[in-house]
Amino acid sequence: MLLSEVNHFANAIEKMLVRGAGLIGSTAAWGMYVSTLHQSEANDIDWRKKIKADATKLIKTRPTAVNLKWAVDQQLKAINDCASLPEALETSFQIATKIWNEDAQMCKDLGVHGLELIDKISRKKNGKTVNILTHCNAGWLAFVDHGSATSPIYAAFDQGIDIHVWVDETRPRNQGSRLTAWELGEHGVPHTIVVDNAGGHLMQHELVDLVLVGSDRTTGDGDVCNKIGTYLKALSAKDNNIPFYAAMPSSTIDWSREDGKSTPIEIRESDEIKYMEGLDQDNNLTSVLLTPASSNASNFAFDVTPARLVTGIITERGISKANRQALLSLYPEFSA
Amino acid sequence: MLLSEVNHFANAIEKMLVRGAGLIGSTAAWGMYVSTLHQSEANDIDWRKKIKADATKLIKTRPTAVNLKWAVDQQLKAINDCASLPEALETSFQIATKIWNEDAQMCKDLGVHGLELIDKISRKKNGKTVNILTHCNAGWLAFVDHGSATSPIYAAFDQGIDIHVWVDETRPRNQGSRLTAWELGEHGVPHTIVVDNAGGHLMQHELVDLVLVGSDRTTGDGDVCNKIGTYLKALSAKDNNIPFYAAMPSSTIDWSREDGKSTPIEIRESDEIKYMEGLDQDNNLTSVLLTPASSNASNFAFDVTPARLVTGIITERGISKANRQALLSLYPEFSA
Repeated sequence: MLLSEVNHFANAIEKMLVRGAGLIGSTAAWGMYVSTLHQSEANDIDWRKKIKADATKLIKTRPTAVNLKWAVDQQLKAINDCASLPEALETSFQIATKIWNEDAQMCKDLGVHGLELIDKISRKKNGKTVNILTHCNAGWLAFVDHGSATSPIYAAFDQGIDIHVWVDETRPRNQGSRLTAWELGEHGVPHTIVVDNAGGHLMQHELVDLVLVGSDRTTGDGDVCNKIGTYLKALSAKDNNIPFYAAMPSSTIDWSREDGKSTPIEIRESDEIKYMEGLDQDNNLTSVLLTPASSNASNFAFDVTPARLVTGIITERGISKANRQALLSLYPEFSA
Repeated sequence: MLLSEVNHFANAIEKMLVRGAGLIGSTAAWGMYVSTLHQSEANDIDWRKKIKADATKLIKTRPTAVNLKWAVDQQLKAINDCASLPEALETSFQIATKIWNEDAQMCKDLGVHGLELIDKISRKKNGKTVNILTHCNAGWLAFVDHGSATSPIYAAFDQGIDIHVWVDETRPRNQGSRLTAWELGEHGVPHTIVVDNAGGHLMQHELVDLVLVGSDRTTGDGDVCNKIGTYLKALSAKDNNIPFYAAMPSSTIDWSREDGKSTPIEIRESDEIKYMEGLDQDNNLTSVLLTPASSNASNFAFDVTPARLVTGIITERGISKANRQALLSLYPEFSA
């Protein structure tokens, strides 16, 4: 699919042709570049106003994902500072490139810190398999590269640490059983798909050593908003004394927000629950109806795990406790 | 499908053509009658031994469901006490009938006690909608009639109490979105399907007043084994101060067991996770592959919610705290 207009970018994000914290941000950054590309200074047209309208359009597509707003705001500010449209075009290209490259680099760097954590658990288990449970897809399919939650996993696997990943199916969009399972399989990482319901039982029976998830928006106080169902896994991790970590590039931290309860939660189409796509026996992608046609369904896309349930936050600068003081000691530039 | 041989009954239970605590027990009771029906006293054949082998076959089909063993054991004991095969045939017919009728009656009676609970919440909310979250199907499709978790719901609805039910999809077999949603729809009860991941978010946002589930086996000490994922909902209910009740006829209580951790947990075929059945656009029942073909999947069918997370147990004799002393005060005949 050719993305040649801002509407294409907005549609790709909204319909989840691209999804995942980092990839949404980077895609939106390129969308802003394309917006600039389509402007004209002829006939006294207010190109800044038109770019701003495109920015609003892009931001509205996914209300929870903070990387989206973070990337678009960076572009808007830089474009507004430009004296001319040609300068804005050059600048927005540079910024999109920077966001794109930084996303991959931050994910790579946080993988190094997360690897230390997995290595510690492996040593404590005398090299026995480290079982990691993850929810949704926070892999390289969700970022420019490496992924957030998967970055430490790939780093640990590549270093020869014996790991196995429990992959939550992640209803209703099945990002776990479709994307994470595929990613891990391609990389050769041993993994097993489970339904979202199974994590508690696995943790009760000492079959999980570490819960490792991504985030779509984490408040400066450490409340982690992530794919719906994450909170349930965090509760279970707490109840069974299992470490629960969220991995994210710092672009996912919403410094201005304290309480995660105020994080806007996207509500999506009920048909994403009522219908499911898969391969039929002729290998054709087919959508099937799973429920009574007349029943309603509600589709909340994210939930918030309060900081008290989060053992730590893995960022590109290191691992932090889930509170503002600890996060700010890694990111002093965000201090008031 | 004609159930004319014990193998048919065993197959129907194992493949989940019939499922649900009460219905499994009743079906097995009739299976035992059919076993007796097929015996012969000719040629000195040891008919008691053959019936016992059939009993073992039936019990093995679903290791977690305690109503199954409860019903088969009742039949076995009664049949063994008979002096002749004709007497055994008459007796096993009577016992199957009794189990069948009692199952419906117990479910009806526990509904009256559960109704009081819902009525109390409704009054506390000044008649505003009582939102009940349920997991799996513990409805009349799972019992001879009324259901366990649904019995108080139907009783409350029929009495005009304003209720709304959040129906957990219940992966991987979708008993919630397929069976409970259909049952509630047929009865006119307002309901909304949600994915299993959503319950925590709903509870955090005061959208749930009561969690009400069934059980496949509850220990004498009050540990509730139920469909996988129930434990996660109980954790969330506790974390948000929402009452969590399990409703069951006393036939589901395993008096001999203390710690729910020792409850045998059935592990089913991984294809139940990897494939999903639904209606395609031509309204044909079609199975689609949801995951990479090469990925493994693990399918634990139940989990155990420890008594400390259970607000109360609704039985046909009343509502009890989830501990042995309280349960025995309702069922003194099981005291040591």
